[in-house]
Amino acid sequence: MKIFNFRVFAIILLSLTVNVSCKDTNGTSNAQNKTELIDKNDIERIEPPNWWVGFKNDSLQLLVKHENIADYQPRISYKGVSIAKVSKGDNSNNYLFIDLGISKASSGKFNITFEKENSESLIATYELKDRLKPSEDYIGFNSSDAIYLITPDRFVNGTVENDSPSGIEGQPELLERTIDRTNSYARHGGDISGVIKHIDYIKDLGFTAIWPQPMLINDMQQGSYHGYAITDLYQIDPRFGTLEEYKTLSRTLQYNGMKLIMDQVANHCGLYHWWMKDLPFKDWLNLQQNFEEHKENWGHNYTNYSNHRRTTNQDIYASEADKKGNNQGWFVATMPDLNQRNPFMATYIIQNSIWWIETAQLGGIRQDTYPYPDKAFMSDWAGAIMTEYPNFTIVGEEWSYNPLLIGYWQEGAKNNDGYDSNLKSTMDFAMQKEVVDGIKEKESWDKGLVKIYEGLANDFHYASPKDIMIFPDNHDMSRIFTQMDGDVVKTKMAMATYATMPRIMQMYYGTEILMNDFEMPGDHGLIRTDFPGGWDGDAVNAFTGQGLTDVQKDMQVFIKKLFNYRKNSKAIHEGETIHFAPFVGTYFMYRTFGDETVVLILNKNEDIITIDLNYQSEIGLKGKTLKNIITGETKLWGDVIELKSKGVTLLTTK
Amino acid sequence: MKIFNFRVFAIILLSLTVNVSCKDTNGTSNAQNKTELIDKNDIERIEPPNWWVGFKNDSLQLLVKHENIADYQPRISYKGVSIAKVSKGDNSNNYLFIDLGISKASSGKFNITFEKENSESLIATYELKDRLKPSEDYIGFNSSDAIYLITPDRFVNGTVENDSPSGIEGQPELLERTIDRTNSYARHGGDISGVIKHIDYIKDLGFTAIWPQPMLINDMQQGSYHGYAITDLYQIDPRFGTLEEYKTLSRTLQYNGMKLIMDQVANHCGLYHWWMKDLPFKDWLNLQQNFEEHKENWGHNYTNYSNHRRTTNQDIYASEADKKGNNQGWFVATMPDLNQRNPFMATYIIQNSIWWIETAQLGGIRQDTYPYPDKAFMSDWAGAIMTEYPNFTIVGEEWSYNPLLIGYWQEGAKNNDGYDSNLKSTMDFAMQKEVVDGIKEKESWDKGLVKIYEGLANDFHYASPKDIMIFPDNHDMSRIFTQMDGDVVKTKMAMATYATMPRIMQMYYGTEILMNDFEMPGDHGLIRTDFPGGWDGDAVNAFTGQGLTDVQKDMQVFIKKLFNYRKNSKAIHEGETIHFAPFVGTYFMYRTFGDETVVLILNKNEDIITIDLNYQSEIGLKGKTLKNIITGETKLWGDVIELKSKGVTLLTTK
Repeated sequence: MKIFNFRVFAIILLSLTVNVSCKDTNGTSNAQNKTELIDKNDIERIEPPNWWVGFKNDSLQLLVKHENIADYQPRISYKGVSIAKVSKGDNSNNYLFIDLGISKASSGKFNITFEKENSESLIATYELKDRLKPSEDYIGFNSSDAIYLITPDRFVNGTVENDSPSGIEGQPELLERTIDRTNSYARHGGDISGVIKHIDYIKDLGFTAIWPQPMLINDMQQGSYHGYAITDLYQIDPRFGTLEEYKTLSRTLQYNGMKLIMDQVANHCGLYHWWMKDLPFKDWLNLQQNFEEHKENWGHNYTNYSNHRRTTNQDIYASEADKKGNNQGWFVATMPDLNQRNPFMATYIIQNSIWWIETAQLGGIRQDTYPYPDKAFMSDWAGAIMTEYPNFTIVGEEWSYNPLLIGYWQEGAKNNDGYDSNLKSTMDFAMQKEVVDGIKEKESWDKGLVKIYEGLANDFHYASPKDIMIFPDNHDMSRIFTQMDGDVVKTKMAMATYATMPRIMQMYYGTEILMNDFEMPGDHGLIRTDFPGGWDGDAVNAFTGQGLTDVQKDMQVFIKKLFNYRKNSKAIHEGETIHFAPFVGTYFMYRTFGDETVVLILNKNEDIITIDLNYQSEIGLKGKTLKNIITGETKLWGDVIELKSKGVTLLTTK
Repeated sequence: MKIFNFRVFAIILLSLTVNVSCKDTNGTSNAQNKTELIDKNDIERIEPPNWWVGFKNDSLQLLVKHENIADYQPRISYKGVSIAKVSKGDNSNNYLFIDLGISKASSGKFNITFEKENSESLIATYELKDRLKPSEDYIGFNSSDAIYLITPDRFVNGTVENDSPSGIEGQPELLERTIDRTNSYARHGGDISGVIKHIDYIKDLGFTAIWPQPMLINDMQQGSYHGYAITDLYQIDPRFGTLEEYKTLSRTLQYNGMKLIMDQVANHCGLYHWWMKDLPFKDWLNLQQNFEEHKENWGHNYTNYSNHRRTTNQDIYASEADKKGNNQGWFVATMPDLNQRNPFMATYIIQNSIWWIETAQLGGIRQDTYPYPDKAFMSDWAGAIMTEYPNFTIVGEEWSYNPLLIGYWQEGAKNNDGYDSNLKSTMDFAMQKEVVDGIKEKESWDKGLVKIYEGLANDFHYASPKDIMIFPDNHDMSRIFTQMDGDVVKTKMAMATYATMPRIMQMYYGTEILMNDFEMPGDHGLIRTDFPGGWDGDAVNAFTGQGLTDVQKDMQVFIKKLFNYRKNSKAIHEGETIHFAPFVGTYFMYRTFGDETVVLILNKNEDIITIDLNYQSEIGLKGKTLKNIITGETKLWGDVIELKSKGVTLLTTK
């Protein structure tokens, strides 16, 4: 087999080490946790491929996929494991859903025997593992973190051997298996091992976590590099590497005190997901009947897309038709919309997320397209995860400039409809834009820096502002240097503002070297340009600095100083915030924790200006010596401060 | 006396009818509610000028102003009235504040005797009245109301005799007492009697309430016509008329089933307010010391104005300096900023509001500049009123396009800081703008009608959307016809949208005849143009229709039909709302109550367009006959609707 099938392999490998000593064929076993383990797997697919003992939720639902498996009766003889219920799909005879009670089970392996009259039984070996660490030790990312967002296909090609894999065992050849770096929408070859090799670089920049776009297999005809059309929710994309490499990535990050955030997608899958050929239920997908009827033209002239009217999630006046249009319409034609109102689908997604947290020892989840799936389910999903991992963090993506919507999705929001998302973090597209507009606009009563001031004032509405994620850019929007029209000073002003405000911080890879999309602003392929130095033979290497312009090097140093300070700054992580309404083209924000005060000064004046500091005396800095976080220079805080030119000044009392 | 002083007059008049029979000079009286009433008023000023028995709050604080009154000791001998406390000002010897307990008092008059050793006593007669109706019967305006906003000086000059009054008894000549209709910032002569004479016109238009700008005296040097620089909080401006006329206005409105809304100002007074010459406390005003020190230049080059950073009321990061700057800075130099944190000032304002509700039998209060006074006080103020009048309505003015701020001020908002304003209604500047933008903008994914759709979707955030006030225009902003660039069709679209959404409705006088400010958009003087027909000799008379253009007449009829339908429409007042995301340049909003459904259709297509109605089948109108509210035409609701041209279609099942 060319492609490593970790599930089958793992089961074979581990079954060899188990002490098989006691046979017990009684369904309601009294055995001493020992039963005859037949090392065998007759079944095409059982998911989750394994599970753990010791969760608060002591039930487990297995999806069993095998030809005519619905005609069989499953039996398990393993102490503490009982079959609570067996369900069949209403659209295929090839599925069984087995609800297990595992409250009293110890870790170990056991057989699931599928019996059918006048037929030979089928046997599958299943394992319940011990958990590696206590629930409480899964610490999610928070405001002390700065997250480096990576498009894995575009960062570093660490292993050329996996650039063009031919296929997965038992499945046809991969649909897209050649790399073409001249095509910005094709695969370029970046992979997990490439990230692993450059964790040091990311760490040196001052980042404490990485969020790679989805690394699960996207066996799609085209555009598979971005990762959001997953075709097997338990499979690492072979072009990115193996499950072992993914786990190594996580371990290496942990060793460096860093966190791995997994990008997950509950709303949809890829059109070539394995179950698309044989759907278990008539309502496994949204608009499934439409899909079945128009299968031939699907992806071409189908029009039942989502209406993308995301406000229907909150709008008390929204029509049922529009609500359905948003939640049940397909995101795009090549991404079947999962129906989370089907309870088996719901359980499948929840268990899948927990499987990955536990398997890869995750430090967080980023959930895609948050306002598109069923919102009651999303609360259940996040709730189920947070019940098992109380210190974990999930951030949900809603692209909205409306603080009402951003706030609605955060756990603890006092929503009139009583909705509680169980979601610790949301994304602050609103504030992202206010900072850009605030820095770029000409100053006036209601334009310019006041946008930052009044934008941040909206924090009064949020349940927990510091748990919201801010970012200069991401994989879907123009690079910050492009947003700032190629102005380095403005880019630095923005970066410093984002990095010091009371938020979780996230930056897109390459922004530290002023990567941009000037040529075609907003073009996804261009935004997700290869990181220079990630490919053998790259003329420019941002890891070594070779070939970078002075301006790029300067920005790289700026980012390094900014984020390395941020890394250890309690004032930025959890300090009190005080800011002053903009005046004469300046804006002052103070973050204070204990004896550490960080001062952010944005100044739009081209010429020297002297600011009277007595208006800000309540901060209590007078007479103290402050150090410039970027330049290292020190100055005494007196009655006035002289600002020499347009830009950002970042000071600290430490 | 040329100017009627109602307080002295009332006391003299009423004292004649009281049976004076029993003398009791004992301070803690056992008298049978009878005491020797000496018909006398030696005191310059006692406020409130009278009070009532039967309030929930059984205390009353009298402000007594008289030369060296602080040297005197007040005594009262009247059953059920006790003096709880006597306080002096710290800035003047000419004030006493007397806290009375009146829980056991019956209505009637009594003397307050001010005693001083070796001096003759001073005597003032005071009256506690019976209330005219139960608290519960003061029904404030609500979503069943459409409010006609009037600038009294500019509506109708009903009494030319009061155009140039020479002064108020005991006070100098009025500072501005000539009318000059050629100057849009001078007095024009409109008055209370003018409004009274044209209640029929307003009622015929379909309005159910009027909100005149403040009618209390503004004895200012200039710009006194607008009413927001009040110089005596217990005095009707003689250029508008008398207290009796104001009461007649209220009575006449009530007789017609209409409500009188009083425009009140708790934040500031006029620079020539009577107390400005002799301030009782050192902290009666905000920045009072500054004022005292710079009195000579006040109004000219003084700069301690409010910073107008209204977000400091909510902002958890706001500096103390900025908070003070907003709340304590003066609105303008000619409007001293009242310090409501002084408890005597606080009580003075609360009692003043209650005095007017009870005296003029108000149907609501509009409170000016809501985010400028002390916000804890404003909650106390509104709370005190709502405790006495549980069905009353107060609307607060915050000019903000941010729904977070609009929502914050409404009673029942689930604010993170626990603030509850006790304010039933706020003003929806956000939605006002969304409607204008939505109708004017070219349609695209995020522009045009979607602004209305998504703007209204924000209602999920409000504690009670239907209790928020919407308006096409007011005295501070361009007329809707001007906002719509003189486009009648768009103006009608906007008017119909405002009038049918779940809100309290308010319109500015003259908008029904397309009054505009094209000549200098936004100019206050121009916005507040004289209503044609309000002055003898006017060439155009909008009351009779004489001289109106056809377009004006058409709009007047449109408004009349719209608001007369609205008047009796339960669907508009309190119906369920369902709307559909805009498509092909159309927007549908449905309001339903029982068997009444009102349909608002906005259409931006210039050419005929046919809309498939099956997408909206959940409304259940198929097969029903609907009537056009404006044209009276009927049509059967089928599978499609044909819209002939750009504009609004307003249908009803009734």
